[in-house]
Amino acid sequence: MGSVFARGAADTSDTAWLQAMLDTEAALARALERAGLVPAGSGAAVTAAANAADFDLAQVGELAALTGNPVPGLARLLARAVGGQSARAVHRGATSQDIMDTSVVLLARRAIDATSGDVAAAADGAARLAAEHRGSVMIGRTLLQQAVPTTFGVVAAGWLSGLDAALAGLQAVRETRLAVQFGGAAGTLASFGPDGPRLVALLAEELGLPAPALPWHTERLRIIDIATAMARVTAALSKIARDVTLLAQTEVGEVAEGAGGSAGPGGSAGSAGSGGDAPRRGGSSAMPNKNNPVAAIAVLGCARQVPGLLATVVASAEQEHQRAAGAWHAEWEPLRDILRLAGSAASWGSDLVRGLQVDAARMERNLAAAGGLPLAERVTAALAQALGGPRAHDLVGAAAAKSVASGVPLRDVLLADPALESVPAERIDLALDPATYLGASDTFVAAALEAHTRRNQHG
Amino acid sequence: MGSVFARGAADTSDTAWLQAMLDTEAALARALERAGLVPAGSGAAVTAAANAADFDLAQVGELAALTGNPVPGLARLLARAVGGQSARAVHRGATSQDIMDTSVVLLARRAIDATSGDVAAAADGAARLAAEHRGSVMIGRTLLQQAVPTTFGVVAAGWLSGLDAALAGLQAVRETRLAVQFGGAAGTLASFGPDGPRLVALLAEELGLPAPALPWHTERLRIIDIATAMARVTAALSKIARDVTLLAQTEVGEVAEGAGGSAGPGGSAGSAGSGGDAPRRGGSSAMPNKNNPVAAIAVLGCARQVPGLLATVVASAEQEHQRAAGAWHAEWEPLRDILRLAGSAASWGSDLVRGLQVDAARMERNLAAAGGLPLAERVTAALAQALGGPRAHDLVGAAAAKSVASGVPLRDVLLADPALESVPAERIDLALDPATYLGASDTFVAAALEAHTRRNQHG
Amino acid sequence: MGSVFARGAADTSDTAWLQAMLDTEAALARALERAGLVPAGSGAAVTAAANAADFDLAQVGELAALTGNPVPGLARLLARAVGGQSARAVHRGATSQDIMDTSVVLLARRAIDATSGDVAAAADGAARLAAEHRGSVMIGRTLLQQAVPTTFGVVAAGWLSGLDAALAGLQAVRETRLAVQFGGAAGTLASFGPDGPRLVALLAEELGLPAPALPWHTERLRIIDIATAMARVTAALSKIARDVTLLAQTEVGEVAEGAGGSAGPGGSAGSAGSGGDAPRRGGSSAMPNKNNPVAAIAVLGCARQVPGLLATVVASAEQEHQRAAGAWHAEWEPLRDILRLAGSAASWGSDLVRGLQVDAARMERNLAAAGGLPLAERVTAALAQALGGPRAHDLVGAAAAKSVASGVPLRDVLLADPALESVPAERIDLALDPATYLGASDTFVAAALEAHTRRNQHG
Amino acid sequence: MGSVFARGAADTSDTAWLQAMLDTEAALARALERAGLVPAGSGAAVTAAANAADFDLAQVGELAALTGNPVPGLARLLARAVGGQSARAVHRGATSQDIMDTSVVLLARRAIDATSGDVAAAADGAARLAAEHRGSVMIGRTLLQQAVPTTFGVVAAGWLSGLDAALAGLQAVRETRLAVQFGGAAGTLASFGPDGPRLVALLAEELGLPAPALPWHTERLRIIDIATAMARVTAALSKIARDVTLLAQTEVGEVAEGAGGSAGPGGSAGSAGSGGDAPRRGGSSAMPNKNNPVAAIAVLGCARQVPGLLATVVASAEQEHQRAAGAWHAEWEPLRDILRLAGSAASWGSDLVRGLQVDAARMERNLAAAGGLPLAERVTAALAQALGGPRAHDLVGAAAAKSVASGVPLRDVLLADPALESVPAERIDLALDPATYLGASDTFVAAALEAHTRRNQHG
Repeated sequence: MGSVFARGAADTSDTAWLQAMLDTEAALARALERAGLVPAGSGAAVTAAANAADFDLAQVGELAALTGNPVPGLARLLARAVGGQSARAVHRGATSQDIMDTSVVLLARRAIDATSGDVAAAADGAARLAAEHRGSVMIGRTLLQQAVPTTFGVVAAGWLSGLDAALAGLQAVRETRLAVQFGGAAGTLASFGPDGPRLVALLAEELGLPAPALPWHTERLRIIDIATAMARVTAALSKIARDVTLLAQTEVGEVAEGAGGSAGPGGSAGSAGSGGDAPRRGGSSAMPNKNNPVAAIAVLGCARQVPGLLATVVASAEQEHQRAAGAWHAEWEPLRDILRLAGSAASWGSDLVRGLQVDAARMERNLAAAGGLPLAERVTAALAQALGGPRAHDLVGAAAAKSVASGVPLRDVLLADPALESVPAERIDLALDPATYLGASDTFVAAALEAHTRRNQHG
Repeated sequence: MGSVFARGAADTSDTAWLQAMLDTEAALARALERAGLVPAGSGAAVTAAANAADFDLAQVGELAALTGNPVPGLARLLARAVGGQSARAVHRGATSQDIMDTSVVLLARRAIDATSGDVAAAADGAARLAAEHRGSVMIGRTLLQQAVPTTFGVVAAGWLSGLDAALAGLQAVRETRLAVQFGGAAGTLASFGPDGPRLVALLAEELGLPAPALPWHTERLRIIDIATAMARVTAALSKIARDVTLLAQTEVGEVAEGAGGSAGPGGSAGSAGSGGDAPRRGGSSAMPNKNNPVAAIAVLGCARQVPGLLATVVASAEQEHQRAAGAWHAEWEPLRDILRLAGSAASWGSDLVRGLQVDAARMERNLAAAGGLPLAERVTAALAQALGGPRAHDLVGAAAAKSVASGVPLRDVLLADPALESVPAERIDLALDPATYLGASDTFVAAALEAHTRRNQHG
Repeated sequence: MGSVFARGAADTSDTAWLQAMLDTEAALARALERAGLVPAGSGAAVTAAANAADFDLAQVGELAALTGNPVPGLARLLARAVGGQSARAVHRGATSQDIMDTSVVLLARRAIDATSGDVAAAADGAARLAAEHRGSVMIGRTLLQQAVPTTFGVVAAGWLSGLDAALAGLQAVRETRLAVQFGGAAGTLASFGPDGPRLVALLAEELGLPAPALPWHTERLRIIDIATAMARVTAALSKIARDVTLLAQTEVGEVAEGAGGSAGPGGSAGSAGSGGDAPRRGGSSAMPNKNNPVAAIAVLGCARQVPGLLATVVASAEQEHQRAAGAWHAEWEPLRDILRLAGSAASWGSDLVRGLQVDAARMERNLAAAGGLPLAERVTAALAQALGGPRAHDLVGAAAAKSVASGVPLRDVLLADPALESVPAERIDLALDPATYLGASDTFVAAALEAHTRRNQHG
Repeated sequence: MGSVFARGAADTSDTAWLQAMLDTEAALARALERAGLVPAGSGAAVTAAANAADFDLAQVGELAALTGNPVPGLARLLARAVGGQSARAVHRGATSQDIMDTSVVLLARRAIDATSGDVAAAADGAARLAAEHRGSVMIGRTLLQQAVPTTFGVVAAGWLSGLDAALAGLQAVRETRLAVQFGGAAGTLASFGPDGPRLVALLAEELGLPAPALPWHTERLRIIDIATAMARVTAALSKIARDVTLLAQTEVGEVAEGAGGSAGPGGSAGSAGSGGDAPRRGGSSAMPNKNNPVAAIAVLGCARQVPGLLATVVASAEQEHQRAAGAWHAEWEPLRDILRLAGSAASWGSDLVRGLQVDAARMERNLAAAGGLPLAERVTAALAQALGGPRAHDLVGAAAAKSVASGVPLRDVLLADPALESVPAERIDLALDPATYLGASDTFVAAALEAHTRRNQHG
C-alpha cells in the first residue's frame, strides 16, 4: 500500500534486481571465457541459465539469511542450473559484493534512463508553458502573501530551469560515474594473478560499463552520486508540485491538474482500466467542489521520502576495511527506494506539467481583486517626481493603509485624495498597470527557453 | 533483494496492510449496525467479504492512482463483493484517512507485539550473559583503545539496560498511544449528526482500540510515537551489534555468533531448509578462517536505515488543514519500513544475544597480553604511599613508556627498576591484578539484573 | 545569522554549556568531600572557582583539540584556578564523558523547563481560541481544496491536543529519563573501589538528579528520549504554523498574526528596542499589502531543522565498547541544536498562538462564497427521501457541476431546477446551512478542553 | 563546546557571514553606480561603510526577529552608517533573499577554496602512502574478519581515489554552480524596468561570480549542489577515519596517528600553544597504554553530522511561489554547518593522512600470526593439480579446521598430513606466501597514482 505512487518505466522490483545480478554473473562467465580462463561454451551456458523467472525469490531470500547477502545462495542455485563443466565458470573469482554492486549499477542505469525520459518530457512541458504564458500576468507571492506582479511564464521558466539542471545531473552521472565493480575477496583480484585487470576490462565490455581505475567496493562516492542525481530530480519536482497545490487551492484557482493518463513521450501513463464507472482522477463524487491535485500530491509524497533515504546512503560511505559490516548492507534498500521514488515522481511530474490547465483569466481576476495594492511601491516612485520622495511615500502609505482597512481599491482612494488633484489620473493608472511592471520577466523567460533549446540540441 | 534481512513475527507486507484496511472497514460496518445506522446483517456481510485473499493488490494499486490513496478503490471493490443492501454499509461516513490511519495503528499493534516478544527474549538472553559473566574479566576499551579492565558481565548489563528501556517504550506506546482514527470528511463526523461520538466508541470497541478525545488526522504525534518506540529498539540493538562485530574481530576473538536458527522463545528462527550442503551461517568454504557475524550485521543493516526514515516521519507532522497534501502520503512507507526493520532487527538481535558464544579464556589472554599497562594508574596509586605521589607518577610513567616501546611487560620493567627495590613484589602484583580493580562492576550487574527481574514480574 | 530565530528562556550557548560542566565538576568535589575522599573544604573551594566567566572559551577549545573533548583541558584549568590541596579534588575519578554527559543532562533539564513553560502558554492560548471559536464556522480543507464545513474551534482543539501531548512528553522525560552519568574510565568506577555507588548517589543528590542503576555512557536511550521529546514539540508546533501560514494567505485571510512582543506568561517576548522607526513585525514599508506571518515562519524555520538532527542523534546510539570513537562526538552539536531550536520554536509558537487574530467574519464570507458546494453531499441526503437515493444523487451532481462551471451558487441552480419544484425551498436552505452540519464538532472541542483542564490541574 | 572540532581555513562564523552580506550590498551599490542608477561616489561610500566590525551582531539579530531575516535591519543600519545621498544606493531594488542567497554563495566559495586545499593536501598524503607502501603486505579484512592478503598501498590508493573524486566535485561546483542571485521583490527586477539584466551582469562582475540565466530564489539545486559537494568530502574522509580507528586498535596496531600540528601545505594545523605541560595529542597521562586517534575521531565526529543536515537542505528545495515560508529559513543553518563541518573534517583529515604512522612490520606480524589460514584457498588451488580439485578441497578444508581449532599453523598441519607426503614442501610454502598472492594490487596502486598525477597536472 505504501508504494501506491510507484510509476514510471524503471523496474526496481526484487525480480528486476535478481535479473541484474544474474546478468552480472552471466557477463562474468562470458568474460572468463573470452579471457581463456574457463572452457569455451561456459559463457553461453551460464547466460542461458541466468533467467530470473527460473529462480525462486523466496528461496534466494532464505539462503541470503545464512550469509548476509543474496549472492552466495544465488550463485549456488545458478551453478546447479547450469550444471556440468560450465557450472565452474559461475561466480569464479568474484566476491558477493562484486555482483551486488555491479547489479546495483545496472539497475541505476536503467532507472536513470527511464527517469531522464520523464524529466525531459516534463522540461519540454514546462518550456511550452513558459512560452505560452510569457504574457500571463499574475500576482507574485512571497511568504504566502501577495507581493508584486510576475508572469506565469516566469514561474514556468523557473520550473524549467530546475528540471534542466536535474536532467544535466542525471546525464553526468550516467556518463562519468557508473562503473563495473570487480575486485574479488579483498579487492586485489588475487585469484586471477596477473589476469585481473584484463578480466575487469572484458567484464566491463560485456556490460557496456566503464572499467574503474581500481575497485570501489569501500569507496562509495559513485553510489552517493547516483542517489544525489535522483534527489536533485525530486527536489526540482517538489518545487513544482508545491506551487501547483498552492495555485490550485479553491481560493486561488489559477491552475488545475489535467485529467492525466495521456500516454505522452514519457511513457508514464497510469491507466486504471476500470471501465465506465471509474472516477475522474482527483474527483470526488461526494464533494463535487473538489478537484484534488493527485499528481502533485504523488510527487510530494515521493519527493519527501528522499532526503531521509539520501542521508542513509551518505552515512553509509563510512565503510570498514575491505568490506563493511553493516554500512554496505544498510545502503541497498534506501538506494533502491530512491531510484523507485525519483522514477515515480518524474513520471507523475511529467504528467503533471504536461497536462497542467492554466487559468490566465483567473490570474488576471485575482490580480485585479488586489485593488492595486501590489503596485503601491511603483505608484510611490511615479509620484515622487511630482511630490518629492518622502511626501509621495507618506501619501501612498496612508492611502494603502486606508485601502487595506476599507477594502476600497487603492486607485479609488488615491483619486479621492485632494492632495493628488494635480496628478493626472492616467499617470496613476499607468503606475497601477501590472502589465507594465514586469521588469526583466520576458528576458528571463527567453533565457530559460534558449538554455533549454541548447540542451535539447546538444544533449 | 533489499529487504534480505526481513524477519520476525510481524507481517508488514502489502497483503497484511490490505487486510488491516479490510478489518477496519468490517469493524465500521459492525459498529454502524450496532448503532442502528445500517440494517441488521450488514456487519456480518461486510466482515465475511473483507478477506484480503479475495482482492487483487495490483487492481487496488491501479485504482489508488486515481485518488491518491488506496481506500476509495478498495471500498468500491469491497462494496461490490458484499453486494445487495449491505453494500451500503461499506465505508459509510468514513473518509479515506480514517481507514488508512486506523489500519496503520492495527499494523503497528501487531508489530509492537511481535517486536516486544523478540526484545524481551533478547533481554532475557542479555540477563543470562550478565549473570554468567559477572566474573569474566576483560579489558575495557575506550575510543577503540584498550583502557582499564571491566567484566563482560558489566557489558551485558549495559546491553540489558538498553533492551529493557526499549521494551518499556514499546509497552507504553502500546498502552497509551494507539487509538482509532475516525472523523469523516473533515474531522467533524458531520454526516452522523449527533451520533458520531457513539459510533467512534463502538468502532473502537470492535477493534479493541481506545477512542481518542478527538480525531487526530492532522495531529501526528501518535504516529511519531510509534516510530520512535521502534527507533529506540534499533538504537539499543545497534549498540549490541556493534560491540559484537568488534569483539568478534579475528584479532580480538572474545565473542562469536552462535550457529543461529534455534527456535527459541522469540520465535524468530530463520531456517534455510536447504539440506545437507547448506553452509553454516557466517561461514565461507573458501575462507575457513572466517566466521562472519551475520546476525550482528543484519541488525546493523536494519538499524542504520531507521534514523533517516524516522526523520521523514517526524517531518511529516507538518500537515495542512484537515488533510495534508503530501505530508500524509510521505508517511506511509517510512512508517511501515520502520515497523519491518525494527521487527527484523529484534528477531536477529534475539538470535544474536541468546546464541552468543563468549570466550572468557580469550578475554583473559587478551588482558594478560596487555602486560599490565591497563593497570598503570592503579600501580601509581599503590606506590604513592611509599614514594609520594609525584615520584610514583614519574616512575610508573617512565616504566610504562619503556614497556610500550620494548614490549616487555610492565611488571618486569617495574621489578627491574632499582628505585623500587624496597617495594615488595606482592604489592606490585596485587596492583597489577585486574580482578581486584573492578570497582562497582558487580553492583552494577546486580542492579541491572534486579531491574530486569522487576520488569519481568510487574510488566 | 543562521540562528536568527533563536529565542526562549533556555540558554544553550557555549558559555551555558561550560557552566554546566563546571557545575558538574563542583558537585563532584562536594560529593567527594561528603564521602570523605577529599579534605574538608575541597568542595567549597572547587565550587567557588567553577565560574564560567573566569574561563576563556577559546583556550578551552584549543585544549579540547588535543584530547578530542573539552573536559581534560577544562579540568586542568579548573585545578589551576582552585590551587593548593583542594585542586586534587578536581575531576577525581571521573572520565571526560562523565562530565560531558552529566552537563548535557543539566542543559537539557533547563531547556525542558523553559520549553515546557512556552508550550504550556501556547496550549493555554489554543484552549482559549478553541473555546472562543467553538461556533466560528469555516470551510474545512482537505488536500488544499475546500471540502465540508468545520469550526475554527475544532481546528484550535486539534492544535491544543498536539501541544498537550508534547507537554506530557516533556514532563515524562523530565521526571523519568534524566540521570547523572558517572562511571570513571571504563564505567566501573574502579578507582573508588567499593565506594563508587555511594559517590554516585551523593553526586546525584548534589545535582538534584536521579542516580541510574548503572552508568549509561554507551547506552544512549536517555539522550534519544531528550531529543525526541523536543522533536515532538516542534512537530506539534509545525502543524499549527503551517495552518497559520495557509490561513493567513492574502486570498484566504482568515487569521493574521498579532503584533508580537507582548511579554505574556511564556516570558518569551522578543524586544527589538529599536525605537520609533522600527517597522511593525511582518510588515513591509514597500509593500503595504503584506503582513508576513513572521512567527509562523520562525516556527517552521526551526521545526524543519529538527528531523535531520534527530536522525543524527538516533544514529549515534551505535556506540562502541566503553566509549565511542565518533558516535559520541557526533551527538553533542545536534542535541544542543535540538534543544535550542525546540526552545525557540516554542517561544515563537507561544507568541503566535496567544496573539493570533481570528477573522470569523472572513471565515463566514469565504464559506458563503463557496456557493453551497461544500454542502452538496448533505443536500443529496436531504433530497433522497423525496426523490430516492439514485435520482437525488444524479440531480444534485448535475446541479453541482453546473454551479462549478457557471459560478452560479448551488442553491440558485437547485431552485431553478423544475424537477425540484415540489421540494420546499426551506428544506434546501436547511440542507445548505453549514452551521447545522457540524456533527460532533462541539463535542470534540469540549473533550479537548476538558483534557487540557485535567492536565493543568493534575500536571 | 559542540563545535570543538572546528578547524580549517574557512570562516563560517556569524561575523564572516555578516561581512559577506555587507560585501554583497557594497557590490550592489557599485553596480548601481556603474549602471548610472545612483550618483557617482555612492559605490565607494557604501563600500567604505560595509565593514562587519562596525556593526553590532546582537542588534542585527534583534532587528531580524521583526522581519524574519537579518537583511532589512542590516540594510537600515548600513544606510544610516553611509548617510547622505549615497544612503539611497543601499539595498536599492534588492529583496532580502537577493542579499542572503548571494552572501551564502560568497561564504560557500571561500569554504570550497579552503576545503579544496585541505582535501588536496590529504590526497597528496594518501598518494605518498600508496607509493611508499605498495609492497607493505597486510591482511585484508571483510566484515571485520581477516580474509585474504592485500597491501597497505592498495588501501591508501582507495583512500586517494575517494579524495580525488571529492576534490573533483568541489571544483565542478566552484566552476559551474555558483552564481549571483538578484531578482528583486518577486524575481522580475520590476523596479529596474529594462535595466535589470544589465545590473545583474554588473553585480556579478563586481563579485567575480557568474550571472545566472534567471533568478534562482526558489530553484534551489545550486544550494543542494554546494551541500552535496561538501557531503562527498566528509563521506570520503569518513572511510579513511574509520579505517584508521580500526587499524589503530590496540589489538591491531598497524597504524597510529602522528603527533599532529605540523603546519603543512593544508595550512590547517591546530596549535594549542599551551606550553610545556601540554599533553601530547591523543595521550593520557593516566593510561600510558592509550594513543587515542583524535584526528580520526574528529573527522568522524564531523562527518556523521552531515547526512542529517544534508537531508534538511534537500528537503528545503520544496519552496513556495516566489519566496518560501519556512523552507528557505530552514536552509541557512544546516548549509552553514555543512560548510563548517566539511571544512573542519578536511583540515583534520589532511593532518591525519599526512601524519599517519604506518607500522609495516606489525602488518607482517599480524599476517604471520594468522598461521596461513588466509591463504587456504590458494593452497587448495595449488594442490588441485596433484590431487584433483575435490580431494584437494576436502583435504585443505580439514587441515584448516584443525588449524583453527588447535592453533597450530596451517603449514604445520599440512606438512604433517601423510596424504601430502608426495607434495614438495616448497610448493606448499609458495602457496602460503602472501607476497605472491596479491593479484592486481600493484596495478591498482599505479592506476590510482597515475589518475592523481593527471588531476594534479590538469586540475
